[in-house]
Amino acid sequence: MQPATLEQLDTPALVLDQRRMDANILRMRERAAALGVVLRPHLKTCKSVDVALRMVQAGDPVTVSTLREAEYFAAAGFTDIFYAVAIAPDKLGRVAALQQAGTRVLLAVDSFEAARRIGLAGQRLGVRFEALVEIDSGDGRSGIAADAPGLQDIAAALADGASLAGVFTHGGHSYGGRSPEQHADVAEQERAAVTAAAGRLREAGHACPIVSLGSTPSVVHARSLEGVTEVRAGVYVFFDLFQAGIGSCTRDDIALGVLATVIGNHPERGQVVIDAGALALSKDISTRALGEAGDCGYGLVADADTGVVLNDLYVHGVSQEHGIIRSRGAIEHAAFPIGRRLLVLPNHACLTAAAYDRYHVVAGTGAIEAVWPRVNGW
Amino acid sequence: MQPATLEQLDTPALVLDQRRMDANILRMRERAAALGVVLRPHLKTCKSVDVALRMVQAGDPVTVSTLREAEYFAAAGFTDIFYAVAIAPDKLGRVAALQQAGTRVLLAVDSFEAARRIGLAGQRLGVRFEALVEIDSGDGRSGIAADAPGLQDIAAALADGASLAGVFTHGGHSYGGRSPEQHADVAEQERAAVTAAAGRLREAGHACPIVSLGSTPSVVHARSLEGVTEVRAGVYVFFDLFQAGIGSCTRDDIALGVLATVIGNHPERGQVVIDAGALALSKDISTRALGEAGDCGYGLVADADTGVVLNDLYVHGVSQEHGIIRSRGAIEHAAFPIGRRLLVLPNHACLTAAAYDRYHVVAGTGAIEAVWPRVNGW
Repeated sequence: MQPATLEQLDTPALVLDQRRMDANILRMRERAAALGVVLRPHLKTCKSVDVALRMVQAGDPVTVSTLREAEYFAAAGFTDIFYAVAIAPDKLGRVAALQQAGTRVLLAVDSFEAARRIGLAGQRLGVRFEALVEIDSGDGRSGIAADAPGLQDIAAALADGASLAGVFTHGGHSYGGRSPEQHADVAEQERAAVTAAAGRLREAGHACPIVSLGSTPSVVHARSLEGVTEVRAGVYVFFDLFQAGIGSCTRDDIALGVLATVIGNHPERGQVVIDAGALALSKDISTRALGEAGDCGYGLVADADTGVVLNDLYVHGVSQEHGIIRSRGAIEHAAFPIGRRLLVLPNHACLTAAAYDRYHVVAGTGAIEAVWPRVNGW
Repeated sequence: MQPATLEQLDTPALVLDQRRMDANILRMRERAAALGVVLRPHLKTCKSVDVALRMVQAGDPVTVSTLREAEYFAAAGFTDIFYAVAIAPDKLGRVAALQQAGTRVLLAVDSFEAARRIGLAGQRLGVRFEALVEIDSGDGRSGIAADAPGLQDIAAALADGASLAGVFTHGGHSYGGRSPEQHADVAEQERAAVTAAAGRLREAGHACPIVSLGSTPSVVHARSLEGVTEVRAGVYVFFDLFQAGIGSCTRDDIALGVLATVIGNHPERGQVVIDAGALALSKDISTRALGEAGDCGYGLVADADTGVVLNDLYVHGVSQEHGIIRSRGAIEHAAFPIGRRLLVLPNHACLTAAAYDRYHVVAGTGAIEAVWPRVNGW
């Protein structure tokens, strides 16, 4: 028998507030429209068809981070999928199978060697792969500089056996920003990099139809995206404490939480223990970078019924299945009897959600409105 | 078609070296025998029946960290299972179902309130629960002090509606030790705490048959376990970089790795990129606590064919599906072409393994000898 209410749900469990999520989705859609660009949402955060179909329609462009996501969303009718991680050549057979079944799959490439292997594999497999060249706009993770001498060679190698669909960048360094101005500056670095790269490629005779950038903070705060055709963002669908900490949202926008139960209460050491630890919350401590005022430990603690954050409480430590709650002030221990339910807001929604195979969807009452599966793994 | 060799396996994938695992299992079995105690291995690391049946026989005592593990191992014929996390009272129905199907399930309890609720639930559900009282021997996570006034009340509350099976402690603070002497000291703290608590309970008329302690470092290094009946340890089955760093094993004992593929190679920034990031490796950075010499970033990098660690290479950074490899010296970039397979040794085996639903078992050749499923979630 499926649990009908949060009260009946065994913990830890992943809870999704549909009203907050819907508001986040609407806001980002309006944002992209105001910027005059296509929104190609990144589905690596939700990994759920039920969530994705509230973000876009199945024919709309989307982004994924694994081929398993690509296969899962393609099976659900999504037909324009950008796999935004440079592809390992051995995986091209899976991409070919998707294309042959009618799904457009855009690949990411940032080296001549990969471009050459994509072209050769396409000839061998009888498909014409499409790829975007990745440009590094300052993040320093992947991609080549917009003015790199090798750009033309990659494009030429791609155009030879495959199709050059455009250029993209990911402004991951926007996560280092702490103000709207800094995020807007990163967005401008992204814009400048991809439009410069697109310009070079067009001068060399390539059409370069797609000019793509993104990260949630840069899309939220960009001043202008002139020359850009589409934006990618993912975590906005749920938001989290890190995004609230850097100003992409407020804490009241966070739609995702981990339902946990008090299993220990220790006034002698000022700690309350919950049954949500490193696996249930993840070991992400990204908010530590926000300084003492922004550090949320392994998550903040809210009342399970109201969703209201309980002042000063945070998950101080985790072991595999234990979470240790402390307070920056003093814990009123009598308020946390064994068995009380709490909701932990995550530092990083993408990583916390990855431990679960489903969302329990709520809408302001204790009732579970729906259970939505997720696709994990590779 | 199942991949027959590592070469055919899509990455990232979890690879288990059976020879190393078998040697780790044998060594711990001999260690427990030498200490004169029963080994009740913790199966939270492996979460696999195939692995567990190499550690013990199905009737032997084992430890788990979730009720899903308990249910999974019970279904495979395990009949003596200690669920070593203080139980949320709402979960007692699942425990009762296991007991009624013939599995002995030992519970953990560290408060009067929980003991009382276990007793009441047992009466309501028609079963007699068995529980061990958790003693804090210095870790400060859960449990009560061996000399806590409340110990007798918890025992009495348990003995009323349930059965007091004994006492246990987890010397998690052994992870703070950096030498065999320090680990042995923690083991002695554990021993002193549980035997003192057992003594108090026996004086009060309780039999207290089980006196249990453990953590891998304390069991590896304990000088004497007089008065202790059983030890619990889990990560020893695979070991990891953190355990090697604190002296529980050597790096050559590490049986678990993540197979990854080079997807980017950037001499201009001294980085190689692999398709194993935060989800594939976990965000555990426990080795950072070992100082500069012991810090392994998000994992060390080995040759996929030989398993030999490539000197000075480590995973410097991760995003969701990207791992950034750097060197403490200089990377020979030509040696890392796009498509090369690498093996990443994990900081913390329990957390890394949790992202995967199966092990690919190897034994010194590139052949996949077996595929063993894991049970994740709750």
